Amino acid sequence: MALRARALYDFNSENPGEISVRENEMVTLYCEQDIEGWLEGVNSRGERGLFPASYVEILKSPAPSYGGAPDGYQGSRYANVPGAPYEPPYRSHVPPSYQPSQGSDDDWDDDWDDSSTVADDPGGVGGAYPDYDGNGPAAGMNYSVSTSSMPRGGSAPQAKSSATVGRNLNRFSTFVKSGGEAFVLGEASGFVKDGDKICVVTGQYGPEWQENPYPFACSIDDPTKQTKFKGMKSYMSYKLTPSHTQSQVHRRYKHFDWLYARLVEKFPVISVPHLPEKQATGRFEEDFISKRRKGLIWWMNHMTSHPVLARCDVFQHFLTCSSTDEKAWKQGKRKAEKDEMVGANFFLTISTPAAPLDLQDVESKIDGFKTFTKKMDDSVLQVNATLSEFARKQIAGFKKEYQKVGQSFKILSQAFELDQQAYSAGLNHAIAYTGDAYDAIGEYFADQSRHDVDPMLDLLALYQGHLANYPDIIHVQKGALTKVKESQKHAEEGKMERPQADGIRERCNIISFATLAEMQHFHQIRVRDFRAQMQQYLREQIGFFQKITSKLEDALRKYDSA
Amino acid sequence: MALRARALYDFNSENPGEISVRENEMVTLYCEQDIEGWLEGVNSRGERGLFPASYVEILKSPAPSYGGAPDGYQGSRYANVPGAPYEPPYRSHVPPSYQPSQGSDDDWDDDWDDSSTVADDPGGVGGAYPDYDGNGPAAGMNYSVSTSSMPRGGSAPQAKSSATVGRNLNRFSTFVKSGGEAFVLGEASGFVKDGDKICVVTGQYGPEWQENPYPFACSIDDPTKQTKFKGMKSYMSYKLTPSHTQSQVHRRYKHFDWLYARLVEKFPVISVPHLPEKQATGRFEEDFISKRRKGLIWWMNHMTSHPVLARCDVFQHFLTCSSTDEKAWKQGKRKAEKDEMVGANFFLTISTPAAPLDLQDVESKIDGFKTFTKKMDDSVLQVNATLSEFARKQIAGFKKEYQKVGQSFKILSQAFELDQQAYSAGLNHAIAYTGDAYDAIGEYFADQSRHDVDPMLDLLALYQGHLANYPDIIHVQKGALTKVKESQKHAEEGKMERPQADGIRERCNIISFATLAEMQHFHQIRVRDFRAQMQQYLREQIGFFQKITSKLEDALRKYDSA
Repeated sequence: MALRARALYDFNSENPGEISVRENEMVTLYCEQDIEGWLEGVNSRGERGLFPASYVEILKSPAPSYGGAPDGYQGSRYANVPGAPYEPPYRSHVPPSYQPSQGSDDDWDDDWDDSSTVADDPGGVGGAYPDYDGNGPAAGMNYSVSTSSMPRGGSAPQAKSSATVGRNLNRFSTFVKSGGEAFVLGEASGFVKDGDKICVVTGQYGPEWQENPYPFACSIDDPTKQTKFKGMKSYMSYKLTPSHTQSQVHRRYKHFDWLYARLVEKFPVISVPHLPEKQATGRFEEDFISKRRKGLIWWMNHMTSHPVLARCDVFQHFLTCSSTDEKAWKQGKRKAEKDEMVGANFFLTISTPAAPLDLQDVESKIDGFKTFTKKMDDSVLQVNATLSEFARKQIAGFKKEYQKVGQSFKILSQAFELDQQAYSAGLNHAIAYTGDAYDAIGEYFADQSRHDVDPMLDLLALYQGHLANYPDIIHVQKGALTKVKESQKHAEEGKMERPQADGIRERCNIISFATLAEMQHFHQIRVRDFRAQMQQYLREQIGFFQKITSKLEDALRKYDSA
Repeated sequence: MALRARALYDFNSENPGEISVRENEMVTLYCEQDIEGWLEGVNSRGERGLFPASYVEILKSPAPSYGGAPDGYQGSRYANVPGAPYEPPYRSHVPPSYQPSQGSDDDWDDDWDDSSTVADDPGGVGGAYPDYDGNGPAAGMNYSVSTSSMPRGGSAPQAKSSATVGRNLNRFSTFVKSGGEAFVLGEASGFVKDGDKICVVTGQYGPEWQENPYPFACSIDDPTKQTKFKGMKSYMSYKLTPSHTQSQVHRRYKHFDWLYARLVEKFPVISVPHLPEKQATGRFEEDFISKRRKGLIWWMNHMTSHPVLARCDVFQHFLTCSSTDEKAWKQGKRKAEKDEMVGANFFLTISTPAAPLDLQDVESKIDGFKTFTKKMDDSVLQVNATLSEFARKQIAGFKKEYQKVGQSFKILSQAFELDQQAYSAGLNHAIAYTGDAYDAIGEYFADQSRHDVDPMLDLLALYQGHLANYPDIIHVQKGALTKVKESQKHAEEGKMERPQADGIRERCNIISFATLAEMQHFHQIRVRDFRAQMQQYLREQIGFFQKITSKLEDALRKYDSA
């Protein structure tokens, strides 16, 4: 007798290998043991395939046994009998974190479209990605390095306001969504543990995040292709080795994506580095794998360099939780998803220097920074476009021109070879060699951008992500400033109690400290990164031209004996 | 009373500053003294200007004095009175060697269109340039490096044939025009002085011209702009310094052109190097002057390298006759133009090794050489086209791409300069410097072809000239071979006396020795020239890439302190 299960929710198959089930539909299982959250079975329409284990309830009453199944579980009539060597299917609060599909070319969405991890859960914790209408979770977050108006997720309560200073009527405002408004209005509350405290200190150049006392880095090795469902599905797994633990963990892109969503939700005025961009096709191609890995290395660099992000619990969980201890992983995952100190409450965790900032001075600095980021964004866009075009020209045009020169020398040497005089043989050989040298130089040109332009473009992409974050960060700070001005006016007019107005000012002061600290951090990593990358670029270019020179010197030597 | 003259011939003015005169027309002269063959006066229509002194006859009877002439000759009533401090106008047998014009932009034809020096002389020695119909002198010779079917001038008698072996009915045939036919048929005759003897010897690689026992070279310095007619006309004068005399002479392009015509006329189976090509405009522009000078240097190199050409009288006259001794120059000029040992008679001057050549072997070698030159011509054409395009790309595309990269770095540095943090100033400066470096590299690319491609193109142009000569040279030898075959047949059939047939074979043997010697010479200079030029090209390219490397290293160092 086979095992049977009843569907708890509708599930619409979206990929080959999956089957759809309707709520309350009965399905026959081949095996009660789920494989990474998926079960295989036959639905009421006789379709056979995979569906999420979390969408069904396995029935305890025996069903006709599935004859001929090759695995060792066919004798277990019940899934959850004690003593069974396997855990019962894990009924998570979240639906499966990927949409399964068959074959490696079709399932590109596997690694990518599962930012719905939390949001799609009909009965889950919810609220991670309120859509723009505030009507509930949205499926996935679409970020792109070229979108500068990216909405930032937030979990700010949309509840009633009791404050005299009016609420922002624009529910789409980042100030509202980020929780900035709620915090400034004094609506945020939560218990801040000592370990959660985030300090802004006054450094040489103004407010800055307190340095991470335990700095670390994290290497990302070339990913390996993993398969599951007997090879039906495959994905890339990256080996991460944090320097502070020296313990390897394996993570998939979807784990990065999940982490990213948590960070964006938690930190309203911190520029969370964007992940390398999506790619629909060629996900297992060497070039793409290498490019994404480099993007992830840069991303990791910015994560570990950031005094706040580097230390936060969810990132540490991501870096240190054993890949094989699924239970610990899910525990940490749920803890992060239930974290209360996100959005508005995040500001509660910030402690600042005692002396408050001059808000007028802050405003002027913020305006200057806004101008700076706009101009930097424009110029990064231009450098990006120029270098991309330059790389394209080197790969196509430059290569072609040098190879045409090489070809013409080769043709000349072939003509000369018709002369069989002994004294001309050496020259013929030397000219043929020169032709080959120019052919090789053409290849050098085609190959070069991998070494200099591409890494520069990776850096620029990361910065384009940051620059796309800043309008929202600035918006939160400016929203807070506006609230201060309004409240001062109301207090002067007697419409608001002075202590309430002072509270708004104090909270705005905290947001301002955090914003200035974040700006300072941005400038510091910018100078560090661009110095290093420009040096790297020039070193590669120098090496490139030296390689050409050396090839030509080889060719020249051939004439010595010609 | 002014001086008067009567026109001897029609003269049609073709340039500003000149006036037309009709035969027998009376003209009033301002001065009886010609300036380089030109007189200034007023014709019967009252037009004032220059006309050729040789076209008029100065009348001895006094004419009304020209009042108010500012020069010092108005008191001299007679041009030719003894004791006058000026020589009488020189009545040359040749018309003026240029068509005068006013201003330097209009008179480009001055330097170029005067190969009519001899040919246009109505009563002169004539015959230098019979036109294709054999109807008399043609005005000028149009040669071009890209024309491979260039007709070669010749002064072969077109007279009756008494030989049994038939004359070639194609009067345009190079074999006929070069004098090859006449020589083979035994019609050439002339007294060969010992000094005129040209020896073909058997060298390591077969027949070759006897080496020049007094090898020399000749430098060509940057030309200077000369003016005459009170600045109305200008031309470029080149300073030549032959190493065997160490005496400077000044020559204009028209002198080279005249010399070239003499050489082509004289040597039927020698590849006379072509002069650098004509240019209609920009004759005084620095680029053109420099380019033409380089072309002339190459030309001179091939002249002095050639054992026969280097030693011939007309070339020695050109190299050694004092520029200021007009009389000696004209004497040598007339002697060259009257040289009888040209064309058919040139072959009389050749002495060969005693053992005759195997004519079948010769034929096979000639055929091989024909294939070789054809293939070399094709490949030179291709190298020429490729390098020209490569240079164009470097001047336009490559420069633009590198400068766009430079520009984008400069824009980035400008954006960064909006951040006034002390720690970012060094980086901003370094990036700006990098931008400038790429801008400079763009200029390097644009400038580079002057140093490598252009000299290569100059060499290729010279060789294209030689390769254009060879079909005619081969044609002469093949014509002679055909005559041998015909005569052998006729002798066998009893239609020709054996001694006559043997004479044809002997004379064909001479032509064959000369042709093989010339081929050998071609291979030797080809290997020498292409080896040197390829080395030069590679050295320049190496220097170019080293210059780029060094510029980038400068830029990289700026980051050390950034």
